Amino acid sequence: MSHSPSQTTLLRAVRIVLCSTTHPGNIGAAARAMKTMGIRDLALVSPRFFPHEDATTRATSASDVLDQAQVFTSLEDALKGCHFVVGLTSRRRDLSHDMVSLRESTLKAAHVITQHAAVFPNEDPHHLPRAAFVFGTEMSGLSNEELDLCSLLANVPTDPDFASLNLGSAVQVTCYELRQAFLGDQPVQPYFQPLARHEDIEALFVHLERALTQTQFLNPQKPKKLMERLRRLLTRKRLEQEEVSLLRGLLKSFERTLAQRTHQADNSDQS
Amino acid sequence: MSHSPSQTTLLRAVRIVLCSTTHPGNIGAAARAMKTMGIRDLALVSPRFFPHEDATTRATSASDVLDQAQVFTSLEDALKGCHFVVGLTSRRRDLSHDMVSLRESTLKAAHVITQHAAVFPNEDPHHLPRAAFVFGTEMSGLSNEELDLCSLLANVPTDPDFASLNLGSAVQVTCYELRQAFLGDQPVQPYFQPLARHEDIEALFVHLERALTQTQFLNPQKPKKLMERLRRLLTRKRLEQEEVSLLRGLLKSFERTLAQRTHQADNSDQS
Repeated sequence: MSHSPSQTTLLRAVRIVLCSTTHPGNIGAAARAMKTMGIRDLALVSPRFFPHEDATTRATSASDVLDQAQVFTSLEDALKGCHFVVGLTSRRRDLSHDMVSLRESTLKAAHVITQHAAVFPNEDPHHLPRAAFVFGTEMSGLSNEELDLCSLLANVPTDPDFASLNLGSAVQVTCYELRQAFLGDQPVQPYFQPLARHEDIEALFVHLERALTQTQFLNPQKPKKLMERLRRLLTRKRLEQEEVSLLRGLLKSFERTLAQRTHQADNSDQS
Repeated sequence: MSHSPSQTTLLRAVRIVLCSTTHPGNIGAAARAMKTMGIRDLALVSPRFFPHEDATTRATSASDVLDQAQVFTSLEDALKGCHFVVGLTSRRRDLSHDMVSLRESTLKAAHVITQHAAVFPNEDPHHLPRAAFVFGTEMSGLSNEELDLCSLLANVPTDPDFASLNLGSAVQVTCYELRQAFLGDQPVQPYFQPLARHEDIEALFVHLERALTQTQFLNPQKPKKLMERLRRLLTRKRLEQEEVSLLRGLLKSFERTLAQRTHQADNSDQS
């Protein structure tokens, strides 16, 4: 019996399509960008040079993505079997297309595929709806004919004064957003330390107040808001058990030193 | 009188710090990546080669960012004047640091700076708190000593099986997330067309029903759910005024052709 495909498997239902790429190095950079984000399906439409050593060099260890890349002579062929086609473009034009942000387009793609997988949990992952993200040639982007084959246009937000996003960078940012859209903003393995118990924190403040009264930093007659401010400082983030022990140890060392000095001072007075 | 700084100005309070970069081409790629996202403040700590023609070549038109880059001999110097320091790292280790996702770290940075600007709207933008995002050397990332100078560690989510994110790509994705964090997911200039009015849509369905009855695609005695399904199909997205006109024109052309053919058929029957 097949399992419901994981989100990582769903990400495999994304195809990156590069149209008429001029510099083979950019194909390699795209392959590497895809693989870092767990996307493997690369389609090339009429690349100027491919295969090419510049592509292989830039791909580094992602050359398997290049090896498995499919080459087509038309975008229409590259889109066969795709259900949701997003064209990346920086141009704003009077096209009868919806144009959304990159983030919105990746969320839509993830929604379409994830929803399908939720309704048909036992379906073969190869039968999932496929989403294609289509990138045009370096100098001029997607042609009008290519844009017409897309169901949605998406734009990577850039500084309007310098929108010169390299093809490899555009693919990198897109694949990053796709990973985020499919997997969510995964919490990083958190740094974990047991938190201090309430009573230990309160004992710390009692200790602190006693120590500060001894050093006369705190005048019990005119306490101002000293203890409140220290309490705010120390509890702004939850105190860990070890941190409370550390602070208690520090206070003890002060008190001990203070006691020794007092003792020495008394002795020297007597001598 | 000074104006409250815009979100674009706030983004200028971000510094990108590259430590011990080996390949000058990566410095150029980072400069270009920064500028596409509206970030200009680049600090270089002990770069192996800088200035260097590879940096200039990869920066393309972002060479102004390189020209203004400051070079330091220690990370500590590069962080002077910074209030919030994020170290980018792929390693998970037993450090007493919080480690969060890239997105979370950029949202925190944007929050700190935006909140300050909201409380002090007339402050000189140069006095805003500065956030530094620190990247280590290509092969091994940030050293333990460098990590200790960071207040937060962040991780770019990648495929655990292939986390080989190029330095330029890491800077690109980080600057993209910073722009998103500061400016929000800006809606793209929407494609706008006036929507159809309710009465026009209803008239369309009356017209459609009449036409389909003529072609006998719709049998008024056994309508099944045909009209409901067509209604669902056509109103899934809000119909535009022009689309309703288009469909009405199409139906009229069918009806006209049908009338002509009927007329011809009648004539041929008679002849």
